[in-house]
Amino acid sequence: MAFGNEREADIDDLPKNAANYMALTPLWFLDRAALVHPNRVSVVHGPRRFTWAETYRRCRRFASALGRHSIGPGKTVAVIAPNIPAIYEAHFGVPMSGAVLNTVNIRLNAATIGFLLGHSSAAVAIVDQEFFTLAEEALKIVANEKKGAFQSPLLIVVGDETCDPSALHYALRKGAIEYEKFLESGDPDFAWKPPKDEWQSIALGYTSGTTSSPKGVVLHHRGAYLMALSCALIWNMTEGAIYLWTLPMFHCNGWCYAWTLAALCGTSICLRQVTAKAVYSAIANEGVTHFCAAPVVLNSIVNAPPSDTILPLPRVVNVNTAGAAPPPSLLADMTKLGFRVTHTYGLSETYGPSVVCAWKPEWDSLPLDQRARVHSRQGVRYVGLEGVDVVNLKTMAPVPADGTTLGEIVMRGNVVMKGYLKNPKANEEAFAHGWYHSGDIGVKHPDGYIEVKDRAKDIIISGGENISSLEVESYLYMHPAILECSVVARPDEQWGESPCVFVTLKQGVDSSNERAVAEDIIKFCRAKMPAYWVPKSVVFGPLPKTATGKIKKHELRTKAKEMGPVKKSRL
Amino acid sequence: MAFGNEREADIDDLPKNAANYMALTPLWFLDRAALVHPNRVSVVHGPRRFTWAETYRRCRRFASALGRHSIGPGKTVAVIAPNIPAIYEAHFGVPMSGAVLNTVNIRLNAATIGFLLGHSSAAVAIVDQEFFTLAEEALKIVANEKKGAFQSPLLIVVGDETCDPSALHYALRKGAIEYEKFLESGDPDFAWKPPKDEWQSIALGYTSGTTSSPKGVVLHHRGAYLMALSCALIWNMTEGAIYLWTLPMFHCNGWCYAWTLAALCGTSICLRQVTAKAVYSAIANEGVTHFCAAPVVLNSIVNAPPSDTILPLPRVVNVNTAGAAPPPSLLADMTKLGFRVTHTYGLSETYGPSVVCAWKPEWDSLPLDQRARVHSRQGVRYVGLEGVDVVNLKTMAPVPADGTTLGEIVMRGNVVMKGYLKNPKANEEAFAHGWYHSGDIGVKHPDGYIEVKDRAKDIIISGGENISSLEVESYLYMHPAILECSVVARPDEQWGESPCVFVTLKQGVDSSNERAVAEDIIKFCRAKMPAYWVPKSVVFGPLPKTATGKIKKHELRTKAKEMGPVKKSRL
Repeated sequence: MAFGNEREADIDDLPKNAANYMALTPLWFLDRAALVHPNRVSVVHGPRRFTWAETYRRCRRFASALGRHSIGPGKTVAVIAPNIPAIYEAHFGVPMSGAVLNTVNIRLNAATIGFLLGHSSAAVAIVDQEFFTLAEEALKIVANEKKGAFQSPLLIVVGDETCDPSALHYALRKGAIEYEKFLESGDPDFAWKPPKDEWQSIALGYTSGTTSSPKGVVLHHRGAYLMALSCALIWNMTEGAIYLWTLPMFHCNGWCYAWTLAALCGTSICLRQVTAKAVYSAIANEGVTHFCAAPVVLNSIVNAPPSDTILPLPRVVNVNTAGAAPPPSLLADMTKLGFRVTHTYGLSETYGPSVVCAWKPEWDSLPLDQRARVHSRQGVRYVGLEGVDVVNLKTMAPVPADGTTLGEIVMRGNVVMKGYLKNPKANEEAFAHGWYHSGDIGVKHPDGYIEVKDRAKDIIISGGENISSLEVESYLYMHPAILECSVVARPDEQWGESPCVFVTLKQGVDSSNERAVAEDIIKFCRAKMPAYWVPKSVVFGPLPKTATGKIKKHELRTKAKEMGPVKKSRL
Repeated sequence: MAFGNEREADIDDLPKNAANYMALTPLWFLDRAALVHPNRVSVVHGPRRFTWAETYRRCRRFASALGRHSIGPGKTVAVIAPNIPAIYEAHFGVPMSGAVLNTVNIRLNAATIGFLLGHSSAAVAIVDQEFFTLAEEALKIVANEKKGAFQSPLLIVVGDETCDPSALHYALRKGAIEYEKFLESGDPDFAWKPPKDEWQSIALGYTSGTTSSPKGVVLHHRGAYLMALSCALIWNMTEGAIYLWTLPMFHCNGWCYAWTLAALCGTSICLRQVTAKAVYSAIANEGVTHFCAAPVVLNSIVNAPPSDTILPLPRVVNVNTAGAAPPPSLLADMTKLGFRVTHTYGLSETYGPSVVCAWKPEWDSLPLDQRARVHSRQGVRYVGLEGVDVVNLKTMAPVPADGTTLGEIVMRGNVVMKGYLKNPKANEEAFAHGWYHSGDIGVKHPDGYIEVKDRAKDIIISGGENISSLEVESYLYMHPAILECSVVARPDEQWGESPCVFVTLKQGVDSSNERAVAEDIIKFCRAKMPAYWVPKSVVFGPLPKTATGKIKKHELRTKAKEMGPVKKSRL
């Protein structure tokens, strides 16, 4: 045998070529699903059922039709729709054309949607019939504000045979193109091209803006691919999963599960309106194995009237919950009903949840309340995220893993956003010191699991002591009369700030004597928590929420401020 | 709300930074496993049991100790060992130091191993005690051939308490460092660094060389990461899987499962010697859920004497088989025993199997023989491979999906090797026309599934007609007396070439009258296949095999040639 070239060849000196390197993109998942399971149901919406072969053809038509309107790389396509087939198809059709998908939160008002469409320079707006007048109004606002600088997007309306057709007819009269007609104008065999560069943007989503104006989070093909696979792995979600769309696809691309389902050749069950009854019904009738939901949705499932439920569950149903920290009692209740809950944590900036409370078999033998407590911790990084830590806000040094020292939760890795659109200042802050700054305050436990204690701005500082509003809430949720609650800082003459709780009571609770209920809650708190944590004010009523079910603490904070400072003598 | 910067910002104009971009590498999987399940068993070898915390510390010691010997990027570390903990640890310890892991096939002879060590310029050789004298001899050969140009590698010997210690003592006397001592010299908290570039090489493996001299297949961190995840997905392998190491880790890094197991925080059961008895015993005693094996191993499992088996299986055991096309009858037999067999296909050049016969639920209702037939097709691309096709050898155009037109199987995507080491000519051929050329001949079925018909060089051309040796074999395997067989071309006076079959008979078959058995086999063939496919020569005896269980057809071809051409009158 000859030794060939005796020169010391560098083992790394082998270049990329067309056969061994391609941009990572989740678009190949769809191509594969249509090849492997062409006749399997891909998407269900009421009586409509699409197969993977159909979905692939529809998405290629979609991309082709966009191309015929000169939509391609660098352009943004907005979708304003609940969880219907069109928004699922947009997750493939839009990036197949090279354009960027901007899913818009349908619960925003016209002014905000106008801002988004203007900020993203949407070239096309695909609008569900129910939201057409909202979009119309939004476009009027932005046209008025930006004058000639704003070019009105191509308007496409999605009809829905399960709804009253008058809204569709209105939109058509106003000149919108019907979505199905739009698809028909495209080529079902369109030879779409993957992006040249996996860093190319695939999606744009605006933060729900609990505080400042919405920021446009830009995601890329590489991250979408990696997160889609990671989402399956951390949830033990396997081939052919049947997934219920309780989580809006407009929220961070449904935490990337829109793409995961294609990778798994799974089935998407659409849901225009999320109610506990609809969730139970889909579990019973569509074979649902998995769904994602914010704790607020789980709350409604746990507290559903018996007539809306179908129990016991016909199979184990896996639930991925994130979006806010679920109180331990809620996790315990869901487990009792037979749901297998995976608790995850993340932000739009990390492609959705990227941290998971990975379950340890040794926890199975803990008493239910202790199980629920460890379960409510946020946990460890997804396989796809390279780093998460809790750091000192000033020094950036990791906090000790003692479960008590507070710090900021920071992340880094391939499922961290590309950046905010047209917002260099926000990018500089978000990416300072080589980490993405979540703005969430947490601790690291001795076993390395992190736990969110609060949003930085939600911490209550009372007499110089930090109080986690979240921690106070987790105790309050154990009170039998409380359905939902939120704790914020209220100015306090003696202590600077003190906790103020806003409460919604469960149905059937006698609330005729609010003062008595309030006193009972405070008594309950005194028995459970340090004295300075105990709320000094209790306010009853419905809680304001964002589109994704997060309680709008800034509104409550404003309310608490307007109530004026707590007097020294009060309670 | 302000519209911010009115300049039309490019939505793609957001650069990479330290927080949102990192090189993909499977090394993070180990870091995560040690964090999430520190006390779970990572690796079992006889009475030894390591936890993930221990494995991580040992691998960091490993990398640190290598660094202290100036081993880092660009250097190669060879491992000559069966499936013991040290070779598993090398999959992390070596790349954590920045170096490239070269696992060496222990069934090669000293001259070939000498060639590999010289070709790869191995800086370190980590050798299992049982293979120390083999390595010693190999090093003597290469030192002799390369003279002063060859620098002898640092020699490390791995002792094994389950073996006779004399081999270890011999190695120590010869100056080798004991592996455990070597680890002790490293820092268990070593702050390893991920590669700067995910294109950096992680592993080097030599093709088994059924034909020419071995070629060094170079794999990179990116591909190893992607394949590791893909391996879990296509096999529905979930968190905590218990994996039996029947497949040698020196064969293409155990098809990347060495890294998959860390991603899943699973458990590796080592196996120094693969026998049917050992496999059944591990299934019974270690809770094995998954293993990979070439068909030759499955054959021994199916044909094991009842005293070696433990049946019925205590649980479903998942088997991934590749390395050669399994005959349908073998798949049927495995299924009958209760194994769930996934049939995959690939090459060292594609990080191991990268094509899978993805199961369709509708096949469940087929009769067993038809099921086995569809099951024996190679199938569709893994999620991690972007393309596989069958193309005309001359025009490179895809063949029609008719199940009959032969062409070459080609692949492209992110799990195609970086290239062959120091072999520009082979790289040029392998990567011609933007595809990786497998050298395998196959067809594409109407449903898009590909099926290997033969290695290009194994096709028999008889009277101008192509005969797939594999297809003839698949019928022969249905004959009740045949344990193993291989069909090759033998020169033929009348037809140019004709099929010649080499046969090993099952235990208990009366082989006293070979001529009668041969005639029976030929009669059997006549009833099943076209006349020109029927072997004209039948030869009995053991079949020569490569280290990975592939039958060495080139040796049989030589033998068939030496037999001289088939006379016109024969049979």
